[in-house]
Amino acid sequence: MSHNTFGHLFRVTTWGESHGPGIGCVVDGCPPGLPITPDAIQVFLDKRRPGQSRFVTQRQEPDAVEILSGVFTDAEGRQVSTGAPISLMIRNVDQRSKDYGDIAQKFRPGHADYTYQAKYGIRDYRGGGRSSARETATRVAAGGIARQVLGSGVIVRGALIQMGKIRIDRSRWDWDEVDNNPFFCPDPVVAKEWEGYLDGIRKAGSSIGAIVEVVAEGVPAGWGAPLYGKLDQDIASAMMSINAVKGVEIGAGMAVAELTGEENADEMRPNSIPHGRHHGPGFMSNNAGGILGGISTGQAIVCRFAIKPTSSILTPRRTVTVSGEATEIFTKGRHDPCVGIRAVPVGEAMLACVLADHMLRHRGQCGGG
Amino acid sequence: MSHNTFGHLFRVTTWGESHGPGIGCVVDGCPPGLPITPDAIQVFLDKRRPGQSRFVTQRQEPDAVEILSGVFTDAEGRQVSTGAPISLMIRNVDQRSKDYGDIAQKFRPGHADYTYQAKYGIRDYRGGGRSSARETATRVAAGGIARQVLGSGVIVRGALIQMGKIRIDRSRWDWDEVDNNPFFCPDPVVAKEWEGYLDGIRKAGSSIGAIVEVVAEGVPAGWGAPLYGKLDQDIASAMMSINAVKGVEIGAGMAVAELTGEENADEMRPNSIPHGRHHGPGFMSNNAGGILGGISTGQAIVCRFAIKPTSSILTPRRTVTVSGEATEIFTKGRHDPCVGIRAVPVGEAMLACVLADHMLRHRGQCGGG
Amino acid sequence: MSHNTFGHLFRVTTWGESHGPGIGCVVDGCPPGLPITPDAIQVFLDKRRPGQSRFVTQRQEPDAVEILSGVFTDAEGRQVSTGAPISLMIRNVDQRSKDYGDIAQKFRPGHADYTYQAKYGIRDYRGGGRSSARETATRVAAGGIARQVLGSGVIVRGALIQMGKIRIDRSRWDWDEVDNNPFFCPDPVVAKEWEGYLDGIRKAGSSIGAIVEVVAEGVPAGWGAPLYGKLDQDIASAMMSINAVKGVEIGAGMAVAELTGEENADEMRPNSIPHGRHHGPGFMSNNAGGILGGISTGQAIVCRFAIKPTSSILTPRRTVTVSGEATEIFTKGRHDPCVGIRAVPVGEAMLACVLADHMLRHRGQCGGG
Amino acid sequence: MSHNTFGHLFRVTTWGESHGPGIGCVVDGCPPGLPITPDAIQVFLDKRRPGQSRFVTQRQEPDAVEILSGVFTDAEGRQVSTGAPISLMIRNVDQRSKDYGDIAQKFRPGHADYTYQAKYGIRDYRGGGRSSARETATRVAAGGIARQVLGSGVIVRGALIQMGKIRIDRSRWDWDEVDNNPFFCPDPVVAKEWEGYLDGIRKAGSSIGAIVEVVAEGVPAGWGAPLYGKLDQDIASAMMSINAVKGVEIGAGMAVAELTGEENADEMRPNSIPHGRHHGPGFMSNNAGGILGGISTGQAIVCRFAIKPTSSILTPRRTVTVSGEATEIFTKGRHDPCVGIRAVPVGEAMLACVLADHMLRHRGQCGGG
Repeated sequence: MSHNTFGHLFRVTTWGESHGPGIGCVVDGCPPGLPITPDAIQVFLDKRRPGQSRFVTQRQEPDAVEILSGVFTDAEGRQVSTGAPISLMIRNVDQRSKDYGDIAQKFRPGHADYTYQAKYGIRDYRGGGRSSARETATRVAAGGIARQVLGSGVIVRGALIQMGKIRIDRSRWDWDEVDNNPFFCPDPVVAKEWEGYLDGIRKAGSSIGAIVEVVAEGVPAGWGAPLYGKLDQDIASAMMSINAVKGVEIGAGMAVAELTGEENADEMRPNSIPHGRHHGPGFMSNNAGGILGGISTGQAIVCRFAIKPTSSILTPRRTVTVSGEATEIFTKGRHDPCVGIRAVPVGEAMLACVLADHMLRHRGQCGGG
Repeated sequence: MSHNTFGHLFRVTTWGESHGPGIGCVVDGCPPGLPITPDAIQVFLDKRRPGQSRFVTQRQEPDAVEILSGVFTDAEGRQVSTGAPISLMIRNVDQRSKDYGDIAQKFRPGHADYTYQAKYGIRDYRGGGRSSARETATRVAAGGIARQVLGSGVIVRGALIQMGKIRIDRSRWDWDEVDNNPFFCPDPVVAKEWEGYLDGIRKAGSSIGAIVEVVAEGVPAGWGAPLYGKLDQDIASAMMSINAVKGVEIGAGMAVAELTGEENADEMRPNSIPHGRHHGPGFMSNNAGGILGGISTGQAIVCRFAIKPTSSILTPRRTVTVSGEATEIFTKGRHDPCVGIRAVPVGEAMLACVLADHMLRHRGQCGGG
Repeated sequence: MSHNTFGHLFRVTTWGESHGPGIGCVVDGCPPGLPITPDAIQVFLDKRRPGQSRFVTQRQEPDAVEILSGVFTDAEGRQVSTGAPISLMIRNVDQRSKDYGDIAQKFRPGHADYTYQAKYGIRDYRGGGRSSARETATRVAAGGIARQVLGSGVIVRGALIQMGKIRIDRSRWDWDEVDNNPFFCPDPVVAKEWEGYLDGIRKAGSSIGAIVEVVAEGVPAGWGAPLYGKLDQDIASAMMSINAVKGVEIGAGMAVAELTGEENADEMRPNSIPHGRHHGPGFMSNNAGGILGGISTGQAIVCRFAIKPTSSILTPRRTVTVSGEATEIFTKGRHDPCVGIRAVPVGEAMLACVLADHMLRHRGQCGGG
Repeated sequence: MSHNTFGHLFRVTTWGESHGPGIGCVVDGCPPGLPITPDAIQVFLDKRRPGQSRFVTQRQEPDAVEILSGVFTDAEGRQVSTGAPISLMIRNVDQRSKDYGDIAQKFRPGHADYTYQAKYGIRDYRGGGRSSARETATRVAAGGIARQVLGSGVIVRGALIQMGKIRIDRSRWDWDEVDNNPFFCPDPVVAKEWEGYLDGIRKAGSSIGAIVEVVAEGVPAGWGAPLYGKLDQDIASAMMSINAVKGVEIGAGMAVAELTGEENADEMRPNSIPHGRHHGPGFMSNNAGGILGGISTGQAIVCRFAIKPTSSILTPRRTVTVSGEATEIFTKGRHDPCVGIRAVPVGEAMLACVLADHMLRHRGQCGGG
């Protein structure tokens, strides 16, 4: 079961609400002997942290991670994993005190207010409670550990490739640009364009959707597990579990509908680069997104997902009260005009976690490593 | 773990290869007392069965399901579930004997040949072995049982909405048309158009991708389980586990990237129709696809997925042999020019299974029913 | 998977080491609307807490539980579960600073030192690290929540029934006596006898084994899930997961080996007390321990488990160093002369957790409640 | 979830009833390339097969196993696992047709009749349905595959060590004797004694309990996974899942209650035999039964379990009808006077399955192999 847990051998259980004492996760199944320090995790949390530019929520959260268990100082003085569960906690600091009367009594359209109430008969309405995007910080922290499991041979990174109707030009893709702008945009020209575009949206109190692409290079052929533990299936599940995601694509994605068999199938040529057990083939294209039959091909794993615009906007929207009466609501205060931006490190983290899990699962069944 | 199992409380484990003695599944966790007969399951298998029109593979398989366990005749003489695992078997009948030398020695581009070999060091190459689309018959059988769990109040159905570049006109959507053409197409005009289009592809020995939409009506508000057992997450996982699927969308899907917060959030009005525990709101749109925060809203659940063109085509494609040498391959014989067609009943079945699982999971945690 | 997690629908993940910042657990799947307060959990922690008599370890730990998530104040002002994961933390307070050189370098016989080192290549040797009995506090905390799930109709309680060779006289069993002595002994005569007996062991720096019996009354007929989710199987698993447990019995237990079919089978008579769906039978004996075919009968669930003597003793024992050389070791300082005593609330908690899980699982599959 | 599934990476799902078309299991997660043939599995089924002596049920079942999936002929012509799920089926042959009126209408004391009815509201009463000991044949078949996973370095075997009050003399233990008598008894003297003893019970239409001991040698140090995936915990769970088992012991078992710390802790001496990653210590005793802290020590794993007498006896017992009226019942026909005998190969199989699962789990987390 997996209400608040994901993964099988690399297994993450998260907890916490937006306005409680903190949020956290327990990472179970981590191989022993890996270097695990708060600093190494913090690097990734800092990418997701709010308040870093005018384009994200102004909530001030240091998002400082504490490691509560599962690490120990080895003979060489390094802080390493012991194989025991690693408990991580991030305290909530900036829970602005305010009157929750409005969101306590009304369901915000596009938010999970109504569904939590319908399911549980009660909901923690403070800042969205459990359904707050704040929970994604724990995913990022877990992803920091997953990267240690994967080792330096696997590179997981992501970028924002579309905001509203403005898409990047893939011919200008430059990974080095991703950290040079507040959008994780790999196209410097479009990054500039987004600045003005998003300022307009922000000032109007509106919000806009986006598409994130995450890529993993260096994954050997053979990870994944047909038929219901497919690598692409678990990636789709992981991405769809991120708040506000409404679509997931692997490789050519939805566009495969328009391809013929001749166009779609990635041809192969001999290749001297070893993949997994074999010197694998060189593929001449990657419509598959690095996955065939649910198993990695040795190519780059490519996944895209779409993030809806945050539903917290200044324009009043029609809704109902908890007791079912017609009313209106609008959201003042801090919010992300394009929540897709901060979803980039979250998507990377989820991909890293899925890959770490499948690395261990593959090793369990097939040995090696 | 879930190599060949999906679901938690309604749990399906499948087995079998294309050219072995048969394929099958074990459905565990079915509530007791539900009418379960081969005939009721066969109805759905017959929709997916090959050889029914010139637009699908000509392999002749009756796909007759046998129930091996888990049912018993109750006091009223009805054959009902007992709560024990239901084992279903479908024998393989039309495994055409032939020389497998070519596909034994070469990796077919777009197929899982190479990845199975890379992962396991061995593969059953006869008809694709375990990675054959034939496995999806067991999903359809399981889906037949899932529908009994859901009861008549939940209607799960699907349609083909795009083939190649030709999309249906949603304003002509007519569920009654779906069974009037060999494509499960809800738009009679486009169905006609597809006929000629697919004949051309078929005669050229080519293939084409497609998009399927599956819809569930009558799902009460409250099913789903944040944060890693989200209903949309489990649907995405289920659809992506179907052979050849490369993208999954819920509600507005990838297009949410282009929406503003004002456009996206589904507004609510009072409604007298009871949803779950509450008289829920009436939504004025359904960009959410019936799911908010991973929990059903009471609206129709709407999911789309893209199926790549089958990689079995007559045009020779470049590839490598098992020993790594450059070669070419093409696929003679029976194949689906648009494998997306037969994916419609498969998608329906997977949606039914996910919903049945979540119905039981919701009841487990929150009671009721 | 379940490295550090147990349960399926009522699911507990624990973390923490003896000498880290703290220990804790995440309880996932708790039904919403149940009253959950630190005080209600503390009652059970206080039963297990060290330092309360001369017969248990003198480590001073308040074992104060903090609730970090998953509860909210409802409309009536009660603190209740929301259905989200409940994160509990207990800080470690009395980690006596000392030189760990000896246990860092030597494997203590009877402890998990060698096996952790063999498995992981590293171990947190401070106070036993992850394998410390301290971890059981988190089980007791989780058990406090499980009792809320079960409600007042199910009474779970336990007692120490044997210490060394001295057994209680079952004819004197009095539940009210259990809290009147430092041993959770239901037999006041034997409780007196144990006092002198254990003083002798304690003063000699030795230790002794024990047997605990835990009983659940009020469980309706029908909980449990054949064939690999049997109620007795999950109870056996839960008890064997407690540190130092080496044997588990249900009902007549190991003694069934000596019974004939006539003696063993519990005969039935009509009974007007309703069990589950039915007015169930009245059983004339309970060799089954309340479970037949893995499913509860409606009788009392009866389980016993044996706890080995703690291996921390003053007498030097032969062992080897981490590098494999012959040496000796003995354990100074604080320890439990009969760790079985504090296992009573732990066994109760584990039984409560298993029952809560099966209550939800039964409701999931079969409805009701 | 695990209603009818056990194991995590080596995962077995069983199905089938005593009087349906057959029984079977799906073994998922088997590493690829292992030789899997019906003959190799049949060896173990034949040990459990009924009708082989006058001391077991006279039902005539060939228990011939069919492999339906997951194996393929490799380049050397051997039939090996492919990594896909292995589906095994055993047809029911000797379902004696008879009038089930009596057991349809009455609950047999000691059987699961009442509890299945209470849980599910319906039960397949023919031959005990799903709760029949016949199901254990599928465990034995799965165990045959598990042995292939473990390889020849791990020897799993079992023996009957007590029948009624007559115990073997452990000083006479001779594994070679186990196959020389119809009881799997390692003590030839006691085997002789049991013959007359059990003849008496059999002729009286009675039955008797027993104790089985199963042992695994060659398990390296390091298998197991604290804290809720302990090796002993999973063994206890597996044994308690076998029909009629009421107690499980590891190593010294329930008797640890009477041991002091000095007596119980197994001392260690240097040893040149390599265990797992290390040259492990030599233990001077094995009260631990080869497991400390839930992890294997490298010593023999020793487990015992008690089997209750079959409740199918000729002496009438008091019971109630389905509608709650007082009545009597007795069981004519074929039954095992000591069902513990045939539990020996079942216990071996379950131990092999648990070990195979933990071998893969250890390899997943810690690598190696």
